[in-house]
Amino acid sequence: MDKNYRFEPELLVDLINSLKRLPGIGVRSARRIAYHLLQHDLKGASLLSNSLIKAVESLRNCKGCNGFTEYDLCYICSNQLRDKKLLCIVETPTDQNSLESSHGYKGLYYILMGRVSPLEGIGPKELNFHLVLDRAKDGVVEEVIIATSFTAEGETTAQFLITMLSEHGIKTTRLARGVPAGSELEYIDAGTIAWALVDRRQVS
Amino acid sequence: MDKNYRFEPELLVDLINSLKRLPGIGVRSARRIAYHLLQHDLKGASLLSNSLIKAVESLRNCKGCNGFTEYDLCYICSNQLRDKKLLCIVETPTDQNSLESSHGYKGLYYILMGRVSPLEGIGPKELNFHLVLDRAKDGVVEEVIIATSFTAEGETTAQFLITMLSEHGIKTTRLARGVPAGSELEYIDAGTIAWALVDRRQVS
Repeated sequence: MDKNYRFEPELLVDLINSLKRLPGIGVRSARRIAYHLLQHDLKGASLLSNSLIKAVESLRNCKGCNGFTEYDLCYICSNQLRDKKLLCIVETPTDQNSLESSHGYKGLYYILMGRVSPLEGIGPKELNFHLVLDRAKDGVVEEVIIATSFTAEGETTAQFLITMLSEHGIKTTRLARGVPAGSELEYIDAGTIAWALVDRRQVS
Repeated sequence: MDKNYRFEPELLVDLINSLKRLPGIGVRSARRIAYHLLQHDLKGASLLSNSLIKAVESLRNCKGCNGFTEYDLCYICSNQLRDKKLLCIVETPTDQNSLESSHGYKGLYYILMGRVSPLEGIGPKELNFHLVLDRAKDGVVEEVIIATSFTAEGETTAQFLITMLSEHGIKTTRLARGVPAGSELEYIDAGTIAWALVDRRQVS
């Protein structure tokens, strides 16, 4: 405990420490949030406490996609209208949201809940790649679309997945790289232009 | 509820909304925190939930300084070694921490828990200035040191306090303005130099 805080009540210090543990929250933000809740938003504090308890107790990983759900299968996995022959692998639920909001995909998902990151000690084993393989080999999936990010770590993750899936003869595709919709070529970086040339498609 | 989230479990949406309510946390941070807690730090989620419940249940405003405490009087207010003749008025507990860590003050505090801010509808009434007056007129306090920030809102707050306290004949002082310790004059703004000239003190 920092000596500056020694005159503060233990419970307040505990609260600040619990808030500090959240990603992206440093000690200053944690103190600010704690003071705000105690002085101006006791209801918000109770709401947050309740939501946390309920979420921890009731949410689990979906048996189909590894996302969060209250049941065995999530809303998307249990939707009979989705195309079960397509499986899209994403890093996080946020990435899944992005794909869903494009309204361009009607298949199913598998969420890795992370990416391969050697520096943080996260490899294929930590991400349970064997479960991805089991899921892709369910006999119904015909194509796996790899939608990890186009960052160094996302590409590494993709490469691991491609190697593993192709060894088992599973058709694997990757999201197209290219010029973003609505952008002027003048402002696009050279790497993107190069990829757009490589991945150019025949139109007539 | 945003249409993008409609496929997410209700409990997850509740958790994200509760997190979004915290100051400085937007919807992206809230989602990131929620996913992180559920996937990687269930213990952190339980800890936070418990600290919130305990803090809300047990912490209250100190009868002496308006700060947070588990008892009637906080650690500082109940310390018999502090000088009860001095009362320092600060905006927030964070400001109190700054003063304490200077080790230059041995009197008592009063924490306003805010500042006068006409744009946000916060005036002397919302900050319970009558309680400040009651505290300053306890018969023991001989000098009130106003240590609100040197910002527009802090200065307004100070002015309100000075007017109120001087009307009741209470000796009131304000923290000195001047050149910060360890700084070269070359890099100090003109306003600060001007104040340092006005507040110059005789040294021999």
